[in-house]
Amino acid sequence: MQKRIRDYGYKIGTLPTGKLNKITDVEGVLVGHSTIKTEKYNTGCTVIVPTPENVFEKKLVAASFVHNGYGKTAGTIQIDELGTLETPIALTNTLNVGLVADAIIEYMVDRCKTEGVEVRSMNPVVGECNDSALSTIVDRPVKKENVFEAFETATRDFVEGNVGAGTGTRCYGFKGGIGSASRIVDLGGKAYTVGVLVQSNYGATRDLMINGKTLDEDVIKTVKGEACDKGSIMVIVATDIPLTSRQLKRVIKRASVGIARLGSYIGHGSGEVFIGFSTANVIDAKGEVMTINCINEDIIDKVFRGVGEATEEAILNSMVCASEACQLDGKKIHSLAEFL
Amino acid sequence: MQKRIRDYGYKIGTLPTGKLNKITDVEGVLVGHSTIKTEKYNTGCTVIVPTPENVFEKKLVAASFVHNGYGKTAGTIQIDELGTLETPIALTNTLNVGLVADAIIEYMVDRCKTEGVEVRSMNPVVGECNDSALSTIVDRPVKKENVFEAFETATRDFVEGNVGAGTGTRCYGFKGGIGSASRIVDLGGKAYTVGVLVQSNYGATRDLMINGKTLDEDVIKTVKGEACDKGSIMVIVATDIPLTSRQLKRVIKRASVGIARLGSYIGHGSGEVFIGFSTANVIDAKGEVMTINCINEDIIDKVFRGVGEATEEAILNSMVCASEACQLDGKKIHSLAEFL
Amino acid sequence: MQKRIRDYGYKIGTLPTGKLNKITDVEGVLVGHSTIKTEKYNTGCTVIVPTPENVFEKKLVAASFVHNGYGKTAGTIQIDELGTLETPIALTNTLNVGLVADAIIEYMVDRCKTEGVEVRSMNPVVGECNDSALSTIVDRPVKKENVFEAFETATRDFVEGNVGAGTGTRCYGFKGGIGSASRIVDLGGKAYTVGVLVQSNYGATRDLMINGKTLDEDVIKTVKGEACDKGSIMVIVATDIPLTSRQLKRVIKRASVGIARLGSYIGHGSGEVFIGFSTANVIDAKGEVMTINCINEDIIDKVFRGVGEATEEAILNSMVCASEACQLDGKKIHSLAEFL
Amino acid sequence: MQKRIRDYGYKIGTLPTGKLNKITDVEGVLVGHSTIKTEKYNTGCTVIVPTPENVFEKKLVAASFVHNGYGKTAGTIQIDELGTLETPIALTNTLNVGLVADAIIEYMVDRCKTEGVEVRSMNPVVGECNDSALSTIVDRPVKKENVFEAFETATRDFVEGNVGAGTGTRCYGFKGGIGSASRIVDLGGKAYTVGVLVQSNYGATRDLMINGKTLDEDVIKTVKGEACDKGSIMVIVATDIPLTSRQLKRVIKRASVGIARLGSYIGHGSGEVFIGFSTANVIDAKGEVMTINCINEDIIDKVFRGVGEATEEAILNSMVCASEACQLDGKKIHSLAEFL
Repeated sequence: MQKRIRDYGYKIGTLPTGKLNKITDVEGVLVGHSTIKTEKYNTGCTVIVPTPENVFEKKLVAASFVHNGYGKTAGTIQIDELGTLETPIALTNTLNVGLVADAIIEYMVDRCKTEGVEVRSMNPVVGECNDSALSTIVDRPVKKENVFEAFETATRDFVEGNVGAGTGTRCYGFKGGIGSASRIVDLGGKAYTVGVLVQSNYGATRDLMINGKTLDEDVIKTVKGEACDKGSIMVIVATDIPLTSRQLKRVIKRASVGIARLGSYIGHGSGEVFIGFSTANVIDAKGEVMTINCINEDIIDKVFRGVGEATEEAILNSMVCASEACQLDGKKIHSLAEFL
Repeated sequence: MQKRIRDYGYKIGTLPTGKLNKITDVEGVLVGHSTIKTEKYNTGCTVIVPTPENVFEKKLVAASFVHNGYGKTAGTIQIDELGTLETPIALTNTLNVGLVADAIIEYMVDRCKTEGVEVRSMNPVVGECNDSALSTIVDRPVKKENVFEAFETATRDFVEGNVGAGTGTRCYGFKGGIGSASRIVDLGGKAYTVGVLVQSNYGATRDLMINGKTLDEDVIKTVKGEACDKGSIMVIVATDIPLTSRQLKRVIKRASVGIARLGSYIGHGSGEVFIGFSTANVIDAKGEVMTINCINEDIIDKVFRGVGEATEEAILNSMVCASEACQLDGKKIHSLAEFL
Repeated sequence: MQKRIRDYGYKIGTLPTGKLNKITDVEGVLVGHSTIKTEKYNTGCTVIVPTPENVFEKKLVAASFVHNGYGKTAGTIQIDELGTLETPIALTNTLNVGLVADAIIEYMVDRCKTEGVEVRSMNPVVGECNDSALSTIVDRPVKKENVFEAFETATRDFVEGNVGAGTGTRCYGFKGGIGSASRIVDLGGKAYTVGVLVQSNYGATRDLMINGKTLDEDVIKTVKGEACDKGSIMVIVATDIPLTSRQLKRVIKRASVGIARLGSYIGHGSGEVFIGFSTANVIDAKGEVMTINCINEDIIDKVFRGVGEATEEAILNSMVCASEACQLDGKKIHSLAEFL
Repeated sequence: MQKRIRDYGYKIGTLPTGKLNKITDVEGVLVGHSTIKTEKYNTGCTVIVPTPENVFEKKLVAASFVHNGYGKTAGTIQIDELGTLETPIALTNTLNVGLVADAIIEYMVDRCKTEGVEVRSMNPVVGECNDSALSTIVDRPVKKENVFEAFETATRDFVEGNVGAGTGTRCYGFKGGIGSASRIVDLGGKAYTVGVLVQSNYGATRDLMINGKTLDEDVIKTVKGEACDKGSIMVIVATDIPLTSRQLKRVIKRASVGIARLGSYIGHGSGEVFIGFSTANVIDAKGEVMTINCINEDIIDKVFRGVGEATEEAILNSMVCASEACQLDGKKIHSLAEFL
């Protein structure tokens, strides 16, 4: 069992969490990792499987929001146009987006063949952070076998920290990585779940604020962390709340609140991309007219709060679950856990 | 009865038209004008009433698309965010947008008071074209009484040409104005209607192409029309097809096809703004979860064609229904009807 | 002299402030108010004059970013398309946008006539917040005389709090209003200024966090403030840093950091709109090819930080400078200053 | 020498063409192909090399516009955020985007190593059309060797038609492919060039209009072409006109005019993505403040016209230069050249 931010006595926000306090609290969602740790490479791949169904056949309502587009995320154009997700989502390092996108296609084409679903087009969704301080990124070390491994090991109670696509990332000058959290949102007496998974890779050490408190000056000195708010963060939001793509876009925009709450100014030097999906409506293209459910927008504020809180906590989990690591240049990257 | 482009033997596109071949073929839609014609002013106001219901209480799904934002249209920010229309739409001249927006609020606040609907916020939607060649635009001659008159005279079989907001506009160097057309779209054996209304005010004479044919050289010489593709066009799209706001945005984007088909390169010098609404879903904010209908997007192509064709024909109707006029500088603006 | 947040011992962020710590630290910028305080009305108008020059003739580079479009701000379409500002910016209440936009046109047309500048089109920029809890908003009490008064009284060392467009607004359940702050940003050894002015009208009392600390429970109980994060905020950003419109859009996006840092989840129930301009490039349309200056984007992070910090401080200034007020329903709205 | 649309006596538009009437009329631009033609595969890769310089080091001003986002184009997020292009642009089939993006990285990383330029991040730009009617697309037959071949064979006077990324595409029910055209635009007495390259893969046969004329009914019958306006088109625009990214976005939007002029309603069933770059400003990040040139926007209309005309002609060239081909299901796809 990994020790998470709540285990250190920090409670983020006011809404109740889901059972695991992870994105997988949303029914049907699984997360898998493939981790590469060698002298030259600290990188990997993390996949978010949105549903046990074949999502290419039974597409889910989806949305994307690019808060800072200095990034290489694949697949957002079609999500924006059609409002649907038709593959699992993968995260990896910046220069591996192409190979990982190709591997998703291979994985899904195989599955579709088995299940008798014809494929002539497919929109793989792949996000990224830049882990070049800890990994020889130009080699694109993540191969399709890594992506397949991530799919095969996908599970509900997945590991966080420096694992999968988070193996080589840094956050506020500490080791970053994969983190997750969830919130329960009560809408009309029914409990819904909002889950968030992040790949954290941004922030200046001096800016970090946990529940409003910055670090002690001697911690900052010990850490010898990051002076600039560079880097990026990928935020994946899953929910079982019935939402249209437009509503979902509004919802995932609030991930930026969690990032800002921790002290970042959302730096220039790499991308912040948010991608969300709802499992509540399946778009499977039968008949001429379909019915979709969505919420009365007057009660959407609770969902905004859920995403903001869960993002903030997911980032902290990505940090405290990560163990220390060493940059290619020899510099030690501390774990935040060391100082809590 | 006004003679329209079909009465001159021109058939635009292949889809069948609605009964009136106007935007008001969409059940419940009405159009009203207030026209100002004096020595100094050729301007006015046209209102599109989307439903006999109180649209502030029973909002309609809506979308906007800004093809060229060199314009002053009011209300699109909220349409984009919430995907709904909550007032009628008005068209007027560029510098009158403020006063006309204010008049819509006054009109709707009064109606709401009568009907016991509380108003604390309201998003008036007002489009515009620049009629300063025929009208002393800096005087903002359209007053709230004009807007009220447009509402009071709203009807199904409304007049086209140099009337209302089209009184002072020019199109391809001829007299432009208000024009309309509609198409019947068969989706799954059921006939739906797509209606378009334009306020036309753009285009170079030499560029004009009707069903692929440019004007004869001697017509161009006689007309002494417009050398540059300046100006703007407002396109209002109404439909009874069940669409989400996202789908509707895709649909109204195709209005640009009708504009391009007539020869324009969509000039810099003023705005092209498209606004659409669907009467098929009423968003009236009761309960926590709502059901909305929308079409299977695989059959949306017919709707695209409908909008493109209706826009093309609406522009031609705006021109042939307009009678000749005189600019403030004394130059005569011919009617296209003269040369067909 | 008004007591501002720094006078209570709170220092926001790390960058140095400008001389006045107001938006008017940007050379040439002035701010004026017109305030309406009666039994029925608490509202008004605030104008931001971007330059002593005729901005219609000498347009400034500008950008807008709509963080939450549930609002009625006028003028952003053209700012987005052309990247320029051609009128002063006014702020007012939600239902007065039309009348205030019209008044700006009248004001500018008069000025242009005096200065021999022809006007045939103009894009007035007007933002708004909803002050209907303290003001009978449906009456649209702000008249053109108020706008003219705001222009006439425009000055560098303007008043903050419940004045002008901030007369009737609330923020985190306290009295909100107009607030401002500025930051000095060193780029290549040269000191530039980023100034922010806000019209604050959002937030739940329990969410408010000042430098990371929420309010004491007994303050929350005394205040009987706001339970929901409704409402809106307008953020106007001025700078003398040479930026393209695209760069400026990136810069003003970071205003959201300041809002989130104070505890908001950026609620649904009204708009958050950010508008920025730079005084460093004048676009006056002479010749075919122009030269514009802009910064090397690799150093833009400092500007991001400046906007985030100044927004956070401007909001706090808007609150502590505001005196208590009374809602139309009799409820007392406290000043935050009372509790610091 | 390939016979192009002008060789059949069709003149598109009014502006003069460049010397080759191809995108490579823009100084420094080269185009290369790699073509795969086997029983199972008709596909390939086309690269547009924007400059002889290392574009990663000396980035060019760029813009993208997604007219219909039902597509998988990679790289537009960063182009939109930073307004720059840092790799050559490649075109390929839909499912090969990942592998081709990876190959561009490999190619550029190698070049950068040779030239002593450090690479830690890179944004490859890859567009696509779906050629699954003529090619077993799920196999992703384009390998990195094909991309390298395309780079090695890049030249000014490149081949058009069913070659490279156009090997397996169809257009208006005829064989489509790669096509190009250019226009000379006079701005202030200086001749600038606008070049367009398309990968054409859309349109219903009955809709095709060449200079306003649809095909004869017996041609439509013989061709047994396409009944629906499905498919997609990639449009790459190059120019030596000094433009900001915002201006360039406005310019490339007008590519849709060329598409509409040929009869399309811009169908749902795949993406229309436009990408443009200007060779007139090099962004090489030295110093704090840079100077960039751009045009006075009042004269941008000519550029709009240039892009519209060149796109229209490029599509026709893509068709008449393509020879007939055979679908995987045995159906013959005619060349338009056969019927002119």
